[in-house]
Amino acid sequence: MYGLIGKMLAAPGKREELLAIMLEGNDAMPGCISYVIARDPASEDGIWITEVWDSKHSHGASLQLPHVQATIAKAKPIIAGFGEYYATEPLGGIGL
Amino acid sequence: MYGLIGKMLAAPGKREELLAIMLEGNDAMPGCISYVIARDPASEDGIWITEVWDSKHSHGASLQLPHVQATIAKAKPIIAGFGEYYATEPLGGIGL
Repeated sequence: MYGLIGKMLAAPGKREELLAIMLEGNDAMPGCISYVIARDPASEDGIWITEVWDSKHSHGASLQLPHVQATIAKAKPIIAGFGEYYATEPLGGIGL
Repeated sequence: MYGLIGKMLAAPGKREELLAIMLEGNDAMPGCISYVIARDPASEDGIWITEVWDSKHSHGASLQLPHVQATIAKAKPIIAGFGEYYATEPLGGIGL
């Protein structure tokens, strides 16, 4: 499996709007096992995204899906940047 | 929901042993929606744990469960420390 832990930073005052776009853009993505969108309670603009994929390839391919491209296009104007970003190798646990 | 993203550091040379203990210790934990155990590919000793709970209370209560206490007791001697640690507010996504 292939995992990602990353922080996205919303433009000032735009976090809830960005969250809404991210949350509605969750149609099927082949190979996606888990994709959790979370508010960062320690900041005004942070959004944590934690992902588990069956492979790194599936993650890369997802970025080309039309509905993912549409979500990215809609979100981009209110994304101020990115913070922490870690790749992981998920092995197991609960809910996979 | 209540989320955690954290890094655990294994004692030198003990990561695989620690992972095995963590992976076998995943009996039911009330309120646990997701608990992903992952190797940190950027280090020799890092383990990422990403968790989603129905509430902060459920997470706290889980630490008192006998099988969780047993896992902690078994793991403790080969845990060198902890790294990054972030609380999150999961809102939705895939696999929850």
